[in-house]
Amino acid sequence: MSLLTVGTVAFDAIETPFGKTDKIVGGAATYIAWSASYFSKKVNLVSVIGDDFDMNELELLKKRGVDTSGIEIKKGKKSFFWSGKYHLDMNTRDTLATELNVLLEFNPVVPEAYINSDILLLGNIDPSLQLKVINQMQEKPKLIVLDTMNFWMTAPFLGALKEVIGKVDVLTINDAEARELSNEYSLVKAAKKILAMGPKYLVIKKGEHGALLFHENEVFFAPALPLEDVFDPTGAGDTFAGGFCGYLDKTRDISFDNMKRAIIYGSAMASFCVEKFGTERLKTLSYPEIEDRVKDFIDLVQFDIVLED
Amino acid sequence: MSLLTVGTVAFDAIETPFGKTDKIVGGAATYIAWSASYFSKKVNLVSVIGDDFDMNELELLKKRGVDTSGIEIKKGKKSFFWSGKYHLDMNTRDTLATELNVLLEFNPVVPEAYINSDILLLGNIDPSLQLKVINQMQEKPKLIVLDTMNFWMTAPFLGALKEVIGKVDVLTINDAEARELSNEYSLVKAAKKILAMGPKYLVIKKGEHGALLFHENEVFFAPALPLEDVFDPTGAGDTFAGGFCGYLDKTRDISFDNMKRAIIYGSAMASFCVEKFGTERLKTLSYPEIEDRVKDFIDLVQFDIVLED
Repeated sequence: MSLLTVGTVAFDAIETPFGKTDKIVGGAATYIAWSASYFSKKVNLVSVIGDDFDMNELELLKKRGVDTSGIEIKKGKKSFFWSGKYHLDMNTRDTLATELNVLLEFNPVVPEAYINSDILLLGNIDPSLQLKVINQMQEKPKLIVLDTMNFWMTAPFLGALKEVIGKVDVLTINDAEARELSNEYSLVKAAKKILAMGPKYLVIKKGEHGALLFHENEVFFAPALPLEDVFDPTGAGDTFAGGFCGYLDKTRDISFDNMKRAIIYGSAMASFCVEKFGTERLKTLSYPEIEDRVKDFIDLVQFDIVLED
Repeated sequence: MSLLTVGTVAFDAIETPFGKTDKIVGGAATYIAWSASYFSKKVNLVSVIGDDFDMNELELLKKRGVDTSGIEIKKGKKSFFWSGKYHLDMNTRDTLATELNVLLEFNPVVPEAYINSDILLLGNIDPSLQLKVINQMQEKPKLIVLDTMNFWMTAPFLGALKEVIGKVDVLTINDAEARELSNEYSLVKAAKKILAMGPKYLVIKKGEHGALLFHENEVFFAPALPLEDVFDPTGAGDTFAGGFCGYLDKTRDISFDNMKRAIIYGSAMASFCVEKFGTERLKTLSYPEIEDRVKDFIDLVQFDIVLED
């Protein structure tokens, strides 16, 4: 099959309790593409960058089989830049700088070669742009997965966000966002309300506490791997989404049971992502390493109980 | 086998976002005994109460097969009383009143009939009292499980607490307490330091985020069941410990693999506990209901992945 993702390709500068970086390559679509490239044979990428971008980084993605021809390069313009500093608990961060640059005039165009992609993964970006991408697909993809964040859950974006949510099959957000979107504290109640907005599946990401997958009246829980250190959480959610969709694409199976597996693979990819700054760790992976990590997840939750009745 | 527990049998007054109670029966050993009674044929209880206590409550425990002859009744004295109010997130609470009463002069005496108990579960109480109980056992029990809390992790109690920790097989604490005791933020690093203090097993309880079991270089994760509402979290940790030890006692198996199962049963018991105020829900359970709940846990985390290599 094939996977199309749209999202930011950008520069980040990151500070964590373990160190800090100069400008390094980041952006949701970058993490998604790296992660998905270990599973999907055909990853298509729609994004926008300035001509200040490090073109060697695109070459590395191309070598992984990612089609980067959908990345628009704006001459004389600067790429999107984000800078942030994480607190000790790694669950909270301060944004130090946000320079939208090329994002201000981003008008995503899906190349002819991409419009039949089987899976569409909408990375976290303005929901009105996500809508534009959906509308350019020739026919409805087999699966549309939406990642978003709390920033779009307020005026003037909420209307467009709800419209996108109504058009997708899977929504992935974190626990705080699920509470904000639904106005319910209980995640079970939140999930019911959000599923009623349209998506058939809801993934609630809880960071170091794992992830929940809701579908109709069923729920599946995937743990996060307990790690000695979380070095840099930037991109973990995008990496998760990329692994999740990449695995579904590779296995050509979008059933609930296969989504459970996909969540474990996505979680495994995220556990690699946080081990080093930026996309560094994702660049050096091998499939056997990924399988070993998935084995750690299996061992982590495996128990055998034979019920008496 | 047989299970001996020592801890408080007391009155609580509880306020949650869902309502409030007058004085109801609580205390760590009460929750432990109710929970363990569904598994263990012989639950022995050492505690102290005043003659203001509701003796019908002891009769109910006796009917469940709990041996309450180790509960000292102090004439003319009042039972321990605690009152607290939970915040909306149910993870934090304010203590409104703590009246130690009979606890001030509690000097636990283990009856002759209890000194050969196979499993000793030390409920959360002053560590110097926990030490006194250990020293009264005729021979070292097959398993000693220690529950404690952050209050005992400061002067002048920390010395005695570390002495108890050095004598037990299993320690159960929550994530914040593990961090405080070890001075490590990473739970993996915290677990290593705490296991080096003596216990062979460490259970880190994370409330709505589940529980981790550490043993040597292995780790097991048990989820918490996503619930529509947590009505009253009081006693959930004690109920977990009671179910955990009760299951080990019933199955006569203290291996790591069986501890995994015991954690699932303990988590199932805790998930019932929080559904109603106090011990109310624990009083009306049946074993088939417990098995059904354990089935929910199995379904929650079950996935089948066949690795390629």
